[in-house]
Amino acid sequence: MDKILKSILKRVKPTPADRERLERATAELIEQTDATCSKLGIKAKAMLVGSAARNTWLRSERDIDIFILLPEGLSREELERQGLAVAREVAGKRGKESFAEHPYVTMRFKGFDVDLVPCYDIAKPSEIRSAVDRSPHHQRYITKHLKSELLDEVLLAKQFMLGIGCYGAELKVQGFSGYLCELLVLHYGSFEKLVESASGWKPSTVIDLERSYPDPSEAERMFEGQPLITIDPVDASRNVGAAVSMRSFATFVRACQDFAQGPGEQFFFPKPVRRLSAREIQATLERRGTTLFCVAFSPPDVVPDVLYPQLRKAERTLVTRLARAGFGVMRSDVWSNSQALILLELAVTRLPRVRTRVGPPVSIEVGDFIQTHLKSKRKFAGPFVDTAGRLIFEIEREQASAREVLEQALGERTTLGRHVGEAIARGYQIYKGKNIVQLCKDEKVSEFISEYLTRCLPWYR
Amino acid sequence: MDKILKSILKRVKPTPADRERLERATAELIEQTDATCSKLGIKAKAMLVGSAARNTWLRSERDIDIFILLPEGLSREELERQGLAVAREVAGKRGKESFAEHPYVTMRFKGFDVDLVPCYDIAKPSEIRSAVDRSPHHQRYITKHLKSELLDEVLLAKQFMLGIGCYGAELKVQGFSGYLCELLVLHYGSFEKLVESASGWKPSTVIDLERSYPDPSEAERMFEGQPLITIDPVDASRNVGAAVSMRSFATFVRACQDFAQGPGEQFFFPKPVRRLSAREIQATLERRGTTLFCVAFSPPDVVPDVLYPQLRKAERTLVTRLARAGFGVMRSDVWSNSQALILLELAVTRLPRVRTRVGPPVSIEVGDFIQTHLKSKRKFAGPFVDTAGRLIFEIEREQASAREVLEQALGERTTLGRHVGEAIARGYQIYKGKNIVQLCKDEKVSEFISEYLTRCLPWYR
Repeated sequence: MDKILKSILKRVKPTPADRERLERATAELIEQTDATCSKLGIKAKAMLVGSAARNTWLRSERDIDIFILLPEGLSREELERQGLAVAREVAGKRGKESFAEHPYVTMRFKGFDVDLVPCYDIAKPSEIRSAVDRSPHHQRYITKHLKSELLDEVLLAKQFMLGIGCYGAELKVQGFSGYLCELLVLHYGSFEKLVESASGWKPSTVIDLERSYPDPSEAERMFEGQPLITIDPVDASRNVGAAVSMRSFATFVRACQDFAQGPGEQFFFPKPVRRLSAREIQATLERRGTTLFCVAFSPPDVVPDVLYPQLRKAERTLVTRLARAGFGVMRSDVWSNSQALILLELAVTRLPRVRTRVGPPVSIEVGDFIQTHLKSKRKFAGPFVDTAGRLIFEIEREQASAREVLEQALGERTTLGRHVGEAIARGYQIYKGKNIVQLCKDEKVSEFISEYLTRCLPWYR
Repeated sequence: MDKILKSILKRVKPTPADRERLERATAELIEQTDATCSKLGIKAKAMLVGSAARNTWLRSERDIDIFILLPEGLSREELERQGLAVAREVAGKRGKESFAEHPYVTMRFKGFDVDLVPCYDIAKPSEIRSAVDRSPHHQRYITKHLKSELLDEVLLAKQFMLGIGCYGAELKVQGFSGYLCELLVLHYGSFEKLVESASGWKPSTVIDLERSYPDPSEAERMFEGQPLITIDPVDASRNVGAAVSMRSFATFVRACQDFAQGPGEQFFFPKPVRRLSAREIQATLERRGTTLFCVAFSPPDVVPDVLYPQLRKAERTLVTRLARAGFGVMRSDVWSNSQALILLELAVTRLPRVRTRVGPPVSIEVGDFIQTHLKSKRKFAGPFVDTAGRLIFEIEREQASAREVLEQALGERTTLGRHVGEAIARGYQIYKGKNIVQLCKDEKVSEFISEYLTRCLPWYR
C-alpha cells in the first residue's frame, strides 16, 4: 500500500519548479488586482483562495482563484459594477465574462485558468449574501486546521476521486469538490483512514467536524435525501457534499471497498477508454440487440452548470414519457461538446396496438370510466374484472412506436428545461441504431459512444 | 324495477309441475335409500339437503342432494364403506363414484343430477369431522330461519349471480354458493336491499348473522385476505364465502352498482357470447397486435375442483416465469373440456440479447457479485453504477425468446400442479398466434376463444 501511495504522490505532487511557477503567477495577479483597485479608486482587496492558496493542488490542476473582496456596505449592483470593473481591467482582452450565482471573469494567464470573482468581505460566515462570499472563510478554516502533514493525504484523496471519475462539484460531474476532499482528510486523519471508513458508508452519512449538530439525526433530517452530508464548519446550514449525487457517492464507496481489498495504481490512474472503430460500434450494437436512439442538437450557449441539469431533465422527461407509453428505457445518458446528445437505449421499439387500461379499485365508484370507454371507438374489449378485482378495458394504444413517442415529447418544449428546450425547438436529429456511427466521425462523440457501450468503473478497465 | 323482478321471477321460479316432478323424484330417492339401508342392515337414514329441500331452486337447476347420515361412532373407513355400499346399491349401474373431501356417488335420475353423499350424523356443528357433515346443519338453519316470503328473493339473488357469472362455489367459478345467497338474502331482508348494500362493499366485508364475533375486526383478522367474510351461523370458524375470489367479489359489487343505477333483465339473462368465425378470430388477433400462445394438452382425469386450481397454478407459474425472463403477460386464462388449454397473451416475444443485472445496494458488501460477472463470458458491460447508486452489469440474456422460456417452464413438471404437470409431461402442443384457429374446429374451444377475445362483463354484452 505504502509503495503505491508513494508512487502516486510522486506523480501528482507539484515539483518545486511547478510551485515556483504558480507562486510567481499568483503573486503577479494579486499585485495587479490590488494595483487596479487603487487605480480605479475602488476600495477592495485581492485574496487567493482555493487549492492554489492551500498547497493542495494536483500537478494536473492549473486553476487560480482570485477573489476580489469588496465592503459589506455596497449594494449588490455596486458590488457587481465595481468588482467586474476591476476584474475586466486585470484580465483585459484575455478575459471572458461568465455567470454562476453572480458574474465573474475568467482568463488564461501563464498557462493557468484564472477566475477573478468579486465577493463581499463579510466577517461572520453566517451573514454571507451569496455562496461565493463563503470561499474566503473556507480559505481561512483550512489554512488554520489542515496541518502540513496532511497536505499529501489531500493530494491522494483528490487524485483518487479524479481517477474514479468523482472529482468536482460541477453539475456535469456531481462529485466531490476539492474543499470536500480537504474536509474528509481532516476529519479522518489520513487518506487510508478515509478509504477505510468510507468503505462502510451508507446513504445519508453525516460528517460534522465542528459538531454543529449534537444529534446527527437532526442533520440527516435537515439534508434529507442527500447521500453525503458534510456539515460546512464555517456554516452549519450548508452541506459541503450537496452536489454529490447518489451515483458519485456509490462509486466512491465501491472504490474504497475495492481499494481496501486490493490497492493499486489503477484507482488513481485508470486506463483510458479505448475508442471503438465505426465497425466495432456497429458490431457491439448488433450484439446487444437493443435499439439506441440518439437525439442530437446544437447545444445552447450556456455554461455547463446550466446545461447539464437541463440535459438530465430532458433525459428524465423522455425516459418517463417512453415508460408511460410502455417502452422501458434500458439505459440512457447525456453528453455535450460541439453537439448535445441524449442517448436512449430501448429493448423494444414497437408494441401491439392493444393496451390495458385499469379502472378504479372495487371500493371506488367508477364514475364515467365505463361509459367513456364503452362508447369509444378505440375499445378492443371490456369492461371486465381481472383476478385482482380490477376493472379493465382493453383499448387502442395511442402510440405503438417508440420513435413517435420520442418525437412527440421532443415537440413539447416546456418539459425539457428552458435552454435545452429552445435548442431542441430550433432543430434536432434522431439517429437510430447503427446510424449513430454517422455522428462518430467526431472523435469526441466516438469516445463518448465507446465509453457508453463498454461502460465499466474506471478501475476495472 | 318491480316489473323487471316480476318478469325474472316468472322465468326462474319452478312451476307447480316442476315442483311436483322434483318432489316425486326426491321422495322416491329417499324411500329407496332408506329401504336400502334396512336391506343392507346399515344403521343410517337419508336426508334431502340443498336448494331442492328448501324450495330455493331455480327452474334451471336440476340438482338433488341426498345425504346418508351415519352414526357418529363409526370409524372413517367404516363410514365410507357403509355409506358407499348404500349409495352404490341405490344408484346401481347409473352411479359414478367421485371424490371431493371424501367419496360420494353421482347419478342421473329422472332428469335430475343426484349426489348421494355419506356423512356423519353429528348433533353439534362444532364437532363435525368433515365439511359435508355441516350440510344437514345448514339445512336445518335455513329451514328454520328463511321465511317463505324470502324464497322468491333467494331465487332472484341466485339468478342474478348466475347471470353475472358468479354463481357457484366450485373452484372453476370461485363464486357464491346457493347457501351463501340464502344467507345474504336472510341478512339483508330482500334482493333489492342486498343489491343496495353490496354496491358499497369493500374487500374484507364481514357479514355475521348470529353476531358470533362481537368485534368484526376480529373476524377480518381471522379470515384475512378473503374478500367476502360471511360467518357460517352454524360454525363460526367457517367463512361461507371462502370460495369467493376477488374477481367474483368485484364482479358482483360492480354488477350491484350498475343494477342499482339502471336495472335490467340483462343482469339475470345476459346475451350469450357470440361465437367468432375462424376468420374473425384471425382478424381480431391481427388487430390486437399481440402474440397469443395456447398450450394445449389432454386434461388429467380428475374432477373440476381438482383440475381448475392446478390449471390456475400452472398458469401463474408460466406467467411468473415469463415475467422473470422479461416477457410481461398482458392477459392469460385457462379452460378445460375435451382439451385443457392455457392461454398466454404477450406484447413482445423477443427481447434483445443484453439484459441488466442489478447488484446489491451500496450499503451491502458485493461479495462475489463483481468477480463472478467480471470473468463471465456472458458479460457485455459493467460493473458500473447507475443514477440510483445501484451496481450494474449488462450480461447476456439466457433466453431471448418467449417460446423458449415457455417450453423450459413446461418441462419442469413439479411447478405445474401434480395432475396437470403429469398431463403436460405426457405431451402438449403450443399454438402460436393465428394457428389457434386449428383448435377452434372444436365448437367449445371456439366459444372459449371468442369469449376471451371479446371479453366483457355479461350485462354489457
